[in-house]
Amino acid sequence: MKIVVSGLGIIGASLCASLKKAGYKVYGKNRSSEPLEYALSHGMIDKAVQTYDDADIVFLALPPAVTVQELEGGVFKKGAIVADICGVKSVLEEVVYAKPHNYRYVGTHPMAGKETSGIRSASATLFSGANLIVTVCDQTDPAALAQIERLGKEMGFGRIERCSARTHDEKIAITSQLAHIVANAYGKSERAKDCAGFTGGSFQDMTRIAGVDEEMWSQLYLYNREPLLQETEGLISRLNEYRDALANGDGDKMRELLKEGRLAHEIYRKKK
Amino acid sequence: MKIVVSGLGIIGASLCASLKKAGYKVYGKNRSSEPLEYALSHGMIDKAVQTYDDADIVFLALPPAVTVQELEGGVFKKGAIVADICGVKSVLEEVVYAKPHNYRYVGTHPMAGKETSGIRSASATLFSGANLIVTVCDQTDPAALAQIERLGKEMGFGRIERCSARTHDEKIAITSQLAHIVANAYGKSERAKDCAGFTGGSFQDMTRIAGVDEEMWSQLYLYNREPLLQETEGLISRLNEYRDALANGDGDKMRELLKEGRLAHEIYRKKK
Repeated sequence: MKIVVSGLGIIGASLCASLKKAGYKVYGKNRSSEPLEYALSHGMIDKAVQTYDDADIVFLALPPAVTVQELEGGVFKKGAIVADICGVKSVLEEVVYAKPHNYRYVGTHPMAGKETSGIRSASATLFSGANLIVTVCDQTDPAALAQIERLGKEMGFGRIERCSARTHDEKIAITSQLAHIVANAYGKSERAKDCAGFTGGSFQDMTRIAGVDEEMWSQLYLYNREPLLQETEGLISRLNEYRDALANGDGDKMRELLKEGRLAHEIYRKKK
Repeated sequence: MKIVVSGLGIIGASLCASLKKAGYKVYGKNRSSEPLEYALSHGMIDKAVQTYDDADIVFLALPPAVTVQELEGGVFKKGAIVADICGVKSVLEEVVYAKPHNYRYVGTHPMAGKETSGIRSASATLFSGANLIVTVCDQTDPAALAQIERLGKEMGFGRIERCSARTHDEKIAITSQLAHIVANAYGKSERAKDCAGFTGGSFQDMTRIAGVDEEMWSQLYLYNREPLLQETEGLISRLNEYRDALANGDGDKMRELLKEGRLAHEIYRKKK
């Protein structure tokens, strides 16, 4: 079984390392050569390749727009399993099923990452115990799905969650995408720029993921416009309630708002 | 030298444990008896006391409104050093200096905590390497200030930052207070309530501090109304820019907004 991972960033290279650790032979594909050399010298891949030609399984660990291009025009072996790792799914299914393709598509989204990117942040344990979302629809090939889920388990993922692309995109808008917007927007306050000595864990956590790769995330956001717009407007509307309570000096209302948030937290913190 | 710590929650009991570790004899005061018994049996205090009568140094580790009461009407030994640990400072200075008091006040704010509260979350290492803010004004007694800062070092704090109450309150609005509002508001989304399998580190970090003690935090917020209102409105206004970029499908604008946030992050993440 020949597995090719295309795109050796933090996720792609961590897929390579995890698959290697699980005993598989792994081939790496990347536009620039430096990550390939790094992956070879760190035992993350067995060999660098230029094409997907004879691969049985291909992981596309590429930016969203490039993933779309590859799913549309990439040359794969007939019946190959092609899995992407993008943070949006509906737009990819549209591309995959808009016309006949000779490969079997499975969408995946490893719910793991770091605030840093690139192959130097990759590791064989990045996915240990993490959630893996796998998107399915009527056209999904059951054998391909089972194969990808098996690899997910072998790579160390904890819970594997199967859902539709639409469900994925709606949930991810709040569990990941909006969090990156908020972190990014939060620290732009003038007073944050000169905060040495005035921060604790809450500021660090709030802004940990603020340093987003703007190219990738703006693509993800626009590919998931509707759910993300709903969630962004929802949060703004909720923040305005706290704002009003403050402006009115209304302690009772503030306490009530905070209590609601605490009770919600008690529910969702048990679900990861 | 007799040190009394009043209020054995997470911060108060951690002060006790840290002072004990540094070799001091520590007396604990608390309204209810259970935390006193816990502190005694865990070696956090040497003795429980009912008053501040003969204390040389008193730490008030109490909720903001109770701190105000104690600073206003508490009975202290003449010349005693009284330090609070509240997350707001201007309002306390107003109380302290509104009329003559026989004690020497020093405001402190340990920039450490956890998402849990109460004495069971306390530890002798909670403050290790953390920032300690100490507020000063013209009336601050230099010897009392030096004594508190010395204890701060001995308790393991890293950086000790001296500033005015006003500066403290303005900075803390963004480095702590608003972060708690955002975390609290974030997870109220309907979609967050059923997010099992769909979260990664970004959702966890964004909502880690959401379960606030609404009584304490609503007090803190209303005591720091003006700076917090400014910061809340600032964040809402910034979030609206991302919202507009999304609504307009404007990828260039989204990329620009994210880049601004990333560049700001590169500046403030170096300053802790």
